[in-house]
Amino acid sequence: MVGYLYSSCFGSFVFDKDFKLKDKTLFKDILKSNSDLESNKWLEEEKQLIKKHNPEFFIGIKEQKLEGIKLTQDPTKMASIQQFFKKDFSNLYQTNLMITKQKLKQAVTEDQLIIQTINNIDDLNKTTNTLVKRLREWYELYNPEFSESIQDHEKFVELIIKKDKGQLLKELKLKPEQTMGADLKEKDVKPIIALAKQINDSYKLKDVQTKYLEEKMNIVCPNMNAITGALIGAKLMSLAGSLQRMAELPSSTIQLLGAEKALFRHLTNKKSLPPKYGVLHEHPLITKAKKKDHGKIARKLADKISLAVKVDYFKGEFIGDKLKRDLEKRFGR
Amino acid sequence: MVGYLYSSCFGSFVFDKDFKLKDKTLFKDILKSNSDLESNKWLEEEKQLIKKHNPEFFIGIKEQKLEGIKLTQDPTKMASIQQFFKKDFSNLYQTNLMITKQKLKQAVTEDQLIIQTINNIDDLNKTTNTLVKRLREWYELYNPEFSESIQDHEKFVELIIKKDKGQLLKELKLKPEQTMGADLKEKDVKPIIALAKQINDSYKLKDVQTKYLEEKMNIVCPNMNAITGALIGAKLMSLAGSLQRMAELPSSTIQLLGAEKALFRHLTNKKSLPPKYGVLHEHPLITKAKKKDHGKIARKLADKISLAVKVDYFKGEFIGDKLKRDLEKRFGR
Repeated sequence: MVGYLYSSCFGSFVFDKDFKLKDKTLFKDILKSNSDLESNKWLEEEKQLIKKHNPEFFIGIKEQKLEGIKLTQDPTKMASIQQFFKKDFSNLYQTNLMITKQKLKQAVTEDQLIIQTINNIDDLNKTTNTLVKRLREWYELYNPEFSESIQDHEKFVELIIKKDKGQLLKELKLKPEQTMGADLKEKDVKPIIALAKQINDSYKLKDVQTKYLEEKMNIVCPNMNAITGALIGAKLMSLAGSLQRMAELPSSTIQLLGAEKALFRHLTNKKSLPPKYGVLHEHPLITKAKKKDHGKIARKLADKISLAVKVDYFKGEFIGDKLKRDLEKRFGR
Repeated sequence: MVGYLYSSCFGSFVFDKDFKLKDKTLFKDILKSNSDLESNKWLEEEKQLIKKHNPEFFIGIKEQKLEGIKLTQDPTKMASIQQFFKKDFSNLYQTNLMITKQKLKQAVTEDQLIIQTINNIDDLNKTTNTLVKRLREWYELYNPEFSESIQDHEKFVELIIKKDKGQLLKELKLKPEQTMGADLKEKDVKPIIALAKQINDSYKLKDVQTKYLEEKMNIVCPNMNAITGALIGAKLMSLAGSLQRMAELPSSTIQLLGAEKALFRHLTNKKSLPPKYGVLHEHPLITKAKKKDHGKIARKLADKISLAVKVDYFKGEFIGDKLKRDLEKRFGR
């Protein structure tokens, strides 16, 4: 046995095998960053106490209760230690908790808000799609001709809220007796329109969240945002886990973010081709390009994104527009 | 060749092998039920014409165009037939279409509305669950203590809309510095609360649709409704496909509606036990009972439902309360 290492909210302490203090590092930084904590004064006192009693006691926390660990056989010293614990037990526990909470509080960073927002936008996309399919099926019992005449879901929802069946049929140049839809009573139409309103609100909410996301992306990672746009950039960040982790990824991994399934399919079954891109397939430079160029563009795009996100993470200058221009010059129209 | 059968919107006609009319049934019922159609007068004329020309012509519709099929070699007769078609082609086509549409219109029955409504309630359940999970995750960055203190989603959503973080913490007897949640700016809290409002509206919509469903069930199938309640009854009907199809099902099939997966698992792999019930497992008589009685109760329940739904389909008297009492007497508390 060479010695013991003990860490608490005050710092780290190294004891030798006879429990003599050998070395210590106090968490001054934490205390400094928490200088607004009321308990600070108390912490100073605590530190003095630790110094006074050094090096012959040892603190342990067991099941949220503080216990002295028998370090010495000297009964007077033991008594003094036990008394110290008794007196300050609640304070020590509270302070430790408060500092931990403070650290958790500060761990919530802007990129986490971005990740929640993009995931929420994805959720809203999925849920409104589910609901709008149901709405169509239901509404088609009533007015199938109008539902078939309009492909765009968002517009469809908006119009059936605004106008009644008669008006909508008139726009299609149909007389009421020419429709295949049932003549539902008003009380049977009401729940359908109520659903349409809920879906319409969902579309509006998606717009609000998207706008918020765009603002946030522009602050947190302006360089990546310039190249990818808010939605793709945020999706990449969400897949990477955080801005920091994304900044640490090689560009080849960024290129394949969102293509994990296809990648593992390729790795376990060599017959299936390796994926060229994941989330990036939605990027306008790729959607506009010819199929045979997709892989090449995705690689270059990932290169630039990887560079941009590193600059964003280390709060470098804004070079997003330059990077974007480079890409557009090479692959753009 | 014995003869030909031809059906059009006027009726069914049987011709022998020389195209002599042998028999006919006119769709008087359809015409009667469409007596409000303007075209009725024209239809009468048409029928006269058919009689006059009987039995030597034959009508076919090919690619939405009417064509005479050569039935006779007699040139004068042929000419008369062709002229008849020419003159009345558009009318015949239009009338046929209108009658078909009318039939489709009348095919929309009350049970279809019920099926759409219960499916929508299911969709709303799924989508709000997805969204509320996201909301919790997002909100927990801000105020994890409150989110953890309340399990009920609906209440959670309602409260975070009504009260701000300070108020909610005060109810938990926490001071602001005691929370692990980040101090988000107002503009970062706004999108979270916007999501909460959308979810809250979704809960309200579900209540509205459920109330509508209950009214509808009470009209369309009061007997089944008395036994199953609106939600389970409607789900059974949705799985059966319609009230009619459900009335035709044996009670053993009704017992297993919603357990198709488990049933097929049992049929393909004898090791897995056959299911005892599907949707019915949510019925209070079963949820309240001991596990070993579940199968027996489900069978009896399905018997009564099967009886009730037949009475409902054939518009019999209300016996739902009696059936329910029988069940409760035998299995109830």
